[in-house]
Amino acid sequence: MTQVKADCLIVTKSANVTYITGFSGEDSWAIVMPKGVSLVTDSRYSEQARQECKRCRIIVRKKGMVKTIAEMLQNRRGMRIAVEKSASIAEFEQLKKCLPGRLKAIGNIVETVRRTKDESEIAAIREAARIAARAFENTRRQIKHGMTENELAGILDLEIRKSGGQHAFETIAAFGANASRPHHRPTSRKLRKNDTVLIDFGVRFNGYCCDITRCFTSGKISRLYYRVYKAVQKAQAAALKEIKAGVEITKVDSAARTVIKKSGLPVYGHGTGHGLGLEVHEMPSLSPKTEGTLQAGNVITIEPGVYMPGKLGVRIEDDVLVTEKGPVLLSKIPKNLE
Amino acid sequence: MTQVKADCLIVTKSANVTYITGFSGEDSWAIVMPKGVSLVTDSRYSEQARQECKRCRIIVRKKGMVKTIAEMLQNRRGMRIAVEKSASIAEFEQLKKCLPGRLKAIGNIVETVRRTKDESEIAAIREAARIAARAFENTRRQIKHGMTENELAGILDLEIRKSGGQHAFETIAAFGANASRPHHRPTSRKLRKNDTVLIDFGVRFNGYCCDITRCFTSGKISRLYYRVYKAVQKAQAAALKEIKAGVEITKVDSAARTVIKKSGLPVYGHGTGHGLGLEVHEMPSLSPKTEGTLQAGNVITIEPGVYMPGKLGVRIEDDVLVTEKGPVLLSKIPKNLE
Repeated sequence: MTQVKADCLIVTKSANVTYITGFSGEDSWAIVMPKGVSLVTDSRYSEQARQECKRCRIIVRKKGMVKTIAEMLQNRRGMRIAVEKSASIAEFEQLKKCLPGRLKAIGNIVETVRRTKDESEIAAIREAARIAARAFENTRRQIKHGMTENELAGILDLEIRKSGGQHAFETIAAFGANASRPHHRPTSRKLRKNDTVLIDFGVRFNGYCCDITRCFTSGKISRLYYRVYKAVQKAQAAALKEIKAGVEITKVDSAARTVIKKSGLPVYGHGTGHGLGLEVHEMPSLSPKTEGTLQAGNVITIEPGVYMPGKLGVRIEDDVLVTEKGPVLLSKIPKNLE
Repeated sequence: MTQVKADCLIVTKSANVTYITGFSGEDSWAIVMPKGVSLVTDSRYSEQARQECKRCRIIVRKKGMVKTIAEMLQNRRGMRIAVEKSASIAEFEQLKKCLPGRLKAIGNIVETVRRTKDESEIAAIREAARIAARAFENTRRQIKHGMTENELAGILDLEIRKSGGQHAFETIAAFGANASRPHHRPTSRKLRKNDTVLIDFGVRFNGYCCDITRCFTSGKISRLYYRVYKAVQKAQAAALKEIKAGVEITKVDSAARTVIKKSGLPVYGHGTGHGLGLEVHEMPSLSPKTEGTLQAGNVITIEPGVYMPGKLGVRIEDDVLVTEKGPVLLSKIPKNLE
């Protein structure tokens, strides 16, 4: 609060509200003031909020969000109020109209704090990765020719639930050339003999996410696929080798990219990785343009890939904790191609 | 464009981008100008965009979104540019800094057009509801004592995928008193003898959603539960009876609420329903505060409920198309309690 020179911070982004209050529902905002934190929610969530947010004042709004907050803060002229920049223009305009104090928008305050994970957060991500490994193993046993991408994604999601987690985002299952689209949505394309499979999936446990990609084959694979797979594996290993607290993020990113480039394969257009926590994508992003260094306690993905439209797509993605000594691998799923 | 007095409209909201361009991916914006529509996306989606958006100019950005758009619009001083109000404050600030023209934020332009569905949209929602009915039927057969809420939700999601759809939102499966939380997240709570089940789920087909809630029992039910169920059923029927093009939305909402109130049961705090389309919740919202009337071509949910924390929760939700003559039921899942 001192840092942003505000007497009141209005937290609107769902993951930030969760971080500050413990509330895991939606459509609720947190109001942070020196004397304490309030959660403003609605009747759908009143019971849940009372269970999850023991330390907050809980306000079950009957009017609109902004009107409710305006009433909370009335008689406070001159108050310096900060609103998260991720709020919408419509919300900001309404706040400006209704609130008594001076309003300003601030960015990435809570996100920056969230970057460094404490032990309980790391434990949750570790457990998410454990559930992922179990679910993946159980799913792999059920894969058979004739199965659709959509069905495979559904089976994996069910196995995740059976293991006590929930998927962190829409599972990507891509067969053959469909894998050349990094964000492919599962279709009714069936698995053939000597086909390839890419699965990109995440598990959420206690609010925290893991994010893992594996590629393998349902039979024999082409020499091209094998060559690409080995290059991506090498690229990932090169990036992992660079990871430790204090390293420039661009150095990690370029370690992976350089391997792909030197192999004469097309270099992926996405980042080499991203932060992982309450959101599947959070700070820091690992791209050629990211300024700054990795810090101990960051949890990040490393996920280089090669995409050749009409032919193939390969991506290998793991989750690691950054420490002073180097990376600690959280996602322990074997990488055998068969 | 004439209506909002702009020469260029920047569409940032994902569902609106889909509506205008046909693109079903994420993280992409549409730029609407009199001479045509451009989709600004990134390399992860370039292949998909080319397949889905035959009529758009496709720009695969290498720089940030705002910088790319600024370059597209350079040399266009004096241009009147409108940005959707759902964009974030951060995005708006950056646009203001980088764009050459005069910038203003406008709200609900595309959303208002989306309210009225054409035949192909209605067909997609109808098919989503058909898949939902099949998946629900197949799931119901697999329900047994000892199964967790989480597992039940996973089985339903898999059945949806087997039938060719995808879930439209996180499936809610709530046993017993857990159903008193309208937005309950499935847990490891097991189904007991003489338990009750609430399932609130949606299917997405060709981008379009249905949204359905059913309640039933795994054995005998209490007299209280039966009384509540009958009241909710009656409330839903009362609202459905009011539906036709031209009716005041508040009239539909209050028809359902009045039945619950007269039964001496606690009146639900959420809306009686909401619009349904590319988003699970879209215009119009059916609440006591919604101004305006229903129009032919609107597709809405009707979902009254009764929530008694620690005891029970009952909600019945169906999807209907509004016509001049009355409602057309799209969600055809039986409502038998057993």
